[in-house]
Amino acid sequence: MPAHSRAAVLPELTGDVVDLTAAVCDIPSVSGDETRLADAVEAALKPLGHLEVLRDGDSLVARTNLGRDHRVVIAGHIDTVPIKTNVPTWRETALDGTEELWGRGTVDMKGGVAVALHLAAVLTEPRWDITWVFYDHEEVAADDNGLRRLVANHPDWVSGDLAVLGEPTAGGIEGGCNGTLRAEIATTGRTAHSARAWRGVNAIHAAGEILDRLRAYTPREVDVDGLVYREGMSAVGVTGGIASNMIPDRCVVTVNYRFAPSLDPAGAEAHVRELFDGFDIEITDLAGGARPGLDDPLVQSFVESVTGVTGGAPGPKYGWTDVARFAELGIPAVNFGPGDPMLAHADDERCAVEEIRSCARALHTWLA
Amino acid sequence: MPAHSRAAVLPELTGDVVDLTAAVCDIPSVSGDETRLADAVEAALKPLGHLEVLRDGDSLVARTNLGRDHRVVIAGHIDTVPIKTNVPTWRETALDGTEELWGRGTVDMKGGVAVALHLAAVLTEPRWDITWVFYDHEEVAADDNGLRRLVANHPDWVSGDLAVLGEPTAGGIEGGCNGTLRAEIATTGRTAHSARAWRGVNAIHAAGEILDRLRAYTPREVDVDGLVYREGMSAVGVTGGIASNMIPDRCVVTVNYRFAPSLDPAGAEAHVRELFDGFDIEITDLAGGARPGLDDPLVQSFVESVTGVTGGAPGPKYGWTDVARFAELGIPAVNFGPGDPMLAHADDERCAVEEIRSCARALHTWLA
Repeated sequence: MPAHSRAAVLPELTGDVVDLTAAVCDIPSVSGDETRLADAVEAALKPLGHLEVLRDGDSLVARTNLGRDHRVVIAGHIDTVPIKTNVPTWRETALDGTEELWGRGTVDMKGGVAVALHLAAVLTEPRWDITWVFYDHEEVAADDNGLRRLVANHPDWVSGDLAVLGEPTAGGIEGGCNGTLRAEIATTGRTAHSARAWRGVNAIHAAGEILDRLRAYTPREVDVDGLVYREGMSAVGVTGGIASNMIPDRCVVTVNYRFAPSLDPAGAEAHVRELFDGFDIEITDLAGGARPGLDDPLVQSFVESVTGVTGGAPGPKYGWTDVARFAELGIPAVNFGPGDPMLAHADDERCAVEEIRSCARALHTWLA
Repeated sequence: MPAHSRAAVLPELTGDVVDLTAAVCDIPSVSGDETRLADAVEAALKPLGHLEVLRDGDSLVARTNLGRDHRVVIAGHIDTVPIKTNVPTWRETALDGTEELWGRGTVDMKGGVAVALHLAAVLTEPRWDITWVFYDHEEVAADDNGLRRLVANHPDWVSGDLAVLGEPTAGGIEGGCNGTLRAEIATTGRTAHSARAWRGVNAIHAAGEILDRLRAYTPREVDVDGLVYREGMSAVGVTGGIASNMIPDRCVVTVNYRFAPSLDPAGAEAHVRELFDGFDIEITDLAGGARPGLDDPLVQSFVESVTGVTGGAPGPKYGWTDVARFAELGIPAVNFGPGDPMLAHADDERCAVEEIRSCARALHTWLA
């Protein structure tokens, strides 16, 4: 039996949250291979009498049932992108004296997972009922996403009045997220030998008009619930050409539109179709964003409490994240977790240990 | 020993030129596999006492040495593009009553080869000395081209005062040829996640300016020695993009410039560098054209004699052909051969048998 299939055991959850982060990172769980870590999480949570523990595949849900006025959902994914040579983790002291934990998952997002596991054990009598969600398959195709599966199979397991997703935000609060749309904008022409170009119609030349419209386009900045979301309208791919002596009859520009959460998916599609009117347009990917919900009293209490510990004001989240899945259920959702998002997936992925402790303190202050 | 490696034998060269065309087509000689046909051609020419026969690889040169005032070079390639199910050849009568020979090579260019073989045997006392050239590897990379090899290894074998290349021109005379240049015009930018497009510089957007210049460009029509050459400046490929969520940092447009033979390669390159000033430009392919040389008295006698038989006035050749190799040696060169060039390489490749006979008659009239 290979070593990695032996059961893994997590340290005492109520102990040091940085030690716990290292232990969670040291159980490899690349997407598709989360079972051993899911088993360890389940084994650590099951004995806690104040939690009801549920499982679907390699996703776990642990919740209090104290009859509180509100229920808060705190969620994080337990999978990582592929490991380089950065597991197991190690500690280093940076030149400026910062203590850091290095390794795959320290940023995205086993720091957030460890904070949640620690607080799930510590907070036996939280101010509100809490649902802790640990899910699989976030770093791969959306179809496999564990949170998508939970929302589809057990919407009651993940329902609540506010969701906090522990994705790395460097300890700040990032509200909601932009939506994302991909479209293939195509031109058509007529082939000919390039020695007799006048007999054809060049589809690549025609695509110049698509690029002209992109260059002339000024992305909007949209205020949503007090946060300003910057949009983006970008070509992310272009392809055309048959042979080096042929006039091409087709050229495709792939455009990615990142749209503010004030726009719904249908509105985003209409905007793209208007911008590229006259061309063949195929929408290949479309996911709505999430409003930050900062006008919600529960969200306000979270923001006030957390910023009292961490200091920073909330900002918008530009990248699409799983908070949008909560938005689909009508649940306000924010991103809050340790780690610099710029270091996610990087070979030198690492997190300041103080950031992990500070996130744990901030959430504890709000929830205790 | 496989059947195709047995020696092939051509019919009597002085017999019917259409039967000879069929026989040449029925010895398969896809580029790289010309030896059996080259052997058959050599075996058919060797016994002819009025010809000196030379060989380099699978290229053959047969020439008279009669001490005439002028020497005419008549050249054709013996290879074909790959065979479909169209060898051996067959005859059909079209709806309009035209007798046709169907099969690979009937157009490109075993009709021209058969006309040359026939006349090489028939013209024992031609008006001018004649050098008949049958070469290999025309349908593949220029580096393998048999005529290029002959020009490099034995320039004296292919020298003369006028060259006639038997490529298909539907029995008309096409003078010289355009040159061809390929260049990769590139833009550079800076990568970023497409959720934060403003942190990057989009190289695909920047390529819009390249396409704008192409769309605004009006290809020239240039009179050279009395023939009007149409030029072409065409994008034949475009590629850009890293991932569907990345701002790309590089985009490359491949441009093919077909330039009139009045411009030399250096002039063509300068024109492209001027047109795309400000972008990274890499010239990846550059071959000069060939002037039609219609002001040459020998060429004029050819044109007058041939058009007296076939009727049509000479026109320019747009595609680059091996006539440019003769132009490099300072030898005027024209294209003249049976077959509709639009049917070259086609699955339904076929040639009117009367066109083969008419080309043979026209050349015979001029050379006898």
